[in-house]
Amino acid sequence: MALRPHEPAAGGGGSARFADWLARTQDSVRDHVDEFVRVRCTAELDPAGFSVPAQLMIDFASGGKCVRSVFAYLGWLCGGVGESESALRAAASAELLHAFALVQDDVMDQSAVRRGRQAVHLRLAAWHADQGLSGSSARFGESAAILVADLYLVWAERMLRESGVTAAALDRAWPRYDSMRSELAVGQLADLCNDANRVPALGAVMDIARRKSGNYTVRRPLELGAAMADCDETVMGLLGEYGEAIGEAFQLRDDLLGVFGDSSITGKTTGDDVRERKATTVIALADQLAEPSDRARLRDLWTHEVIDERGVALAQAVITDCGARQRAEQMIGDRLEHARRLLAAAELEPSVADALYRMALLCTHRTH
Amino acid sequence: MALRPHEPAAGGGGSARFADWLARTQDSVRDHVDEFVRVRCTAELDPAGFSVPAQLMIDFASGGKCVRSVFAYLGWLCGGVGESESALRAAASAELLHAFALVQDDVMDQSAVRRGRQAVHLRLAAWHADQGLSGSSARFGESAAILVADLYLVWAERMLRESGVTAAALDRAWPRYDSMRSELAVGQLADLCNDANRVPALGAVMDIARRKSGNYTVRRPLELGAAMADCDETVMGLLGEYGEAIGEAFQLRDDLLGVFGDSSITGKTTGDDVRERKATTVIALADQLAEPSDRARLRDLWTHEVIDERGVALAQAVITDCGARQRAEQMIGDRLEHARRLLAAAELEPSVADALYRMALLCTHRTH
Repeated sequence: MALRPHEPAAGGGGSARFADWLARTQDSVRDHVDEFVRVRCTAELDPAGFSVPAQLMIDFASGGKCVRSVFAYLGWLCGGVGESESALRAAASAELLHAFALVQDDVMDQSAVRRGRQAVHLRLAAWHADQGLSGSSARFGESAAILVADLYLVWAERMLRESGVTAAALDRAWPRYDSMRSELAVGQLADLCNDANRVPALGAVMDIARRKSGNYTVRRPLELGAAMADCDETVMGLLGEYGEAIGEAFQLRDDLLGVFGDSSITGKTTGDDVRERKATTVIALADQLAEPSDRARLRDLWTHEVIDERGVALAQAVITDCGARQRAEQMIGDRLEHARRLLAAAELEPSVADALYRMALLCTHRTH
Repeated sequence: MALRPHEPAAGGGGSARFADWLARTQDSVRDHVDEFVRVRCTAELDPAGFSVPAQLMIDFASGGKCVRSVFAYLGWLCGGVGESESALRAAASAELLHAFALVQDDVMDQSAVRRGRQAVHLRLAAWHADQGLSGSSARFGESAAILVADLYLVWAERMLRESGVTAAALDRAWPRYDSMRSELAVGQLADLCNDANRVPALGAVMDIARRKSGNYTVRRPLELGAAMADCDETVMGLLGEYGEAIGEAFQLRDDLLGVFGDSSITGKTTGDDVRERKATTVIALADQLAEPSDRARLRDLWTHEVIDERGVALAQAVITDCGARQRAEQMIGDRLEHARRLLAAAELEPSVADALYRMALLCTHRTH
């Protein structure tokens, strides 16, 4: 990779070099996704007369922060086999898989906003209405979004298969890739089975968070890249432990942002997790830490089918006052520190270890 | 394959032997699907505490007529490389892909009945209600069904990859497999864009029927199997032409059954295609062939949001009286005859050519 030899994570020069490397890697990921979808895939949409969704699919898929692709590529770099455009293309396929997950989740959660714009199913519904087609535009939007997600899922795998990495590397990747995709769907199923009327238990929530979001965001992409590069068991073990810690911290941060995040930065409505009575770590922490009277108010709020602005403000106050917000920050800090120690003791190329640590910082201290 | 040397299609002995071969092949396909899902996949559902859906997924996936798997396996047998348990397992993966398509379609079309039972999303909704979980059971059923479909899609590909056929055979299969899956989603998208308020034009309907159903049911599975067996261009061309003809005939039969089928045999409600104002070949034919007054009544009927039993009866009468039903039968006959001539002139193992002809008969003269 382009990073120079290791410097302490606090070092100013290393930070600038990492920022530069990250920006270039993200740009390359987006370019690969854009090119693959534009050149290889969107021709398949022509029979549906679907030029608008084609552009929408390209824009949406290359519009993320590329967290999963960057982790997958870092996993590859842990193998010590150096930079590779094929491996980067393989890593970039994670953006298409993520686009699949987001589009489908937004239909299920009936989310209105994603990546600072109208969610895909609503944009498709608007297209349906603009065209003056018959039937329910809302229903069309949801169905069309599910199909768009299907295409992302199929294209993601095709992009990985046609990335140019060797057949042996792919053979090592497939079992992990299949498990990751199953885990994603099963995690979402578990989420659906959560009882919205009850404030969730912390253990259960952490378990879902680990499997659904943490694994999928950090650990599995890292392992996928590392498997392609044929990393040994020691490195795989290290990345698994690092990935689990930072995946959990990522989810804790996400859950804090879901309650307190600034909508102009997150691209989602502030307090959405409260409004949707989601089973998140931060809510479960508050239920555990709050005084009996506050806990009762929180649990009562959770039985309401509709939660208004006052309800959101109440939940925010309870979560802050009982120390749950602080506790979540502390849990994030603990996990970051654990990852730092793991990386310090690991026999990785220093520049790669440094990048992993800085990615952990980014994932846990982000504002969106 | 187990079929004995070629006999004329009308021969009694050949027919019995084919029936025997078909029954054994279908049983093997179902066994492979059952085993793969039970042993390899359902453990992945455990974290969701989802024992009911696991059994549901096994039953549903192995509950079909295995048309696509049989065609895929016949494609393989066209290569002259003989029977193969690995190839049969690869062919059987088509059942999982089909389960994906059916479960998702039933959500989009809000169909109540499939394979003679309650549709999967309704069974999942009933499970949700039985468990006393909070929120809308209907909404849960739809979301859970979409995720069940995702798992089928991922497992289908995994079953193909792990079937035991050679890496070279898989390399030949993947591009076709990817195209087939994209074509399926894009065909469904095109279907969604169909304007339900207008009786559809025949050309457009035939085009969607060819791409969405015909290709997916007959042509692509055949080509997939043939590609795995490394068939030459001549055989691929023959199978493409046969597959297109029989795929169209299959869809024409499906469309006739959608209007006139006996619900106790089809496993779907009689007249569903009318009730849902589907854009089918038979409706488009009626619009083309009916007298002006009948055509006006049909078009008027199509503007109604709800079509009752009288409306269904009216549509059935118009379709029969104008000769559309008869014309559709004739189109089926023409395509069957075309396939028969193709097979007669082809240099295929006689028993395989015979099986292909008998499968064509089954597909076009079925009652469900």
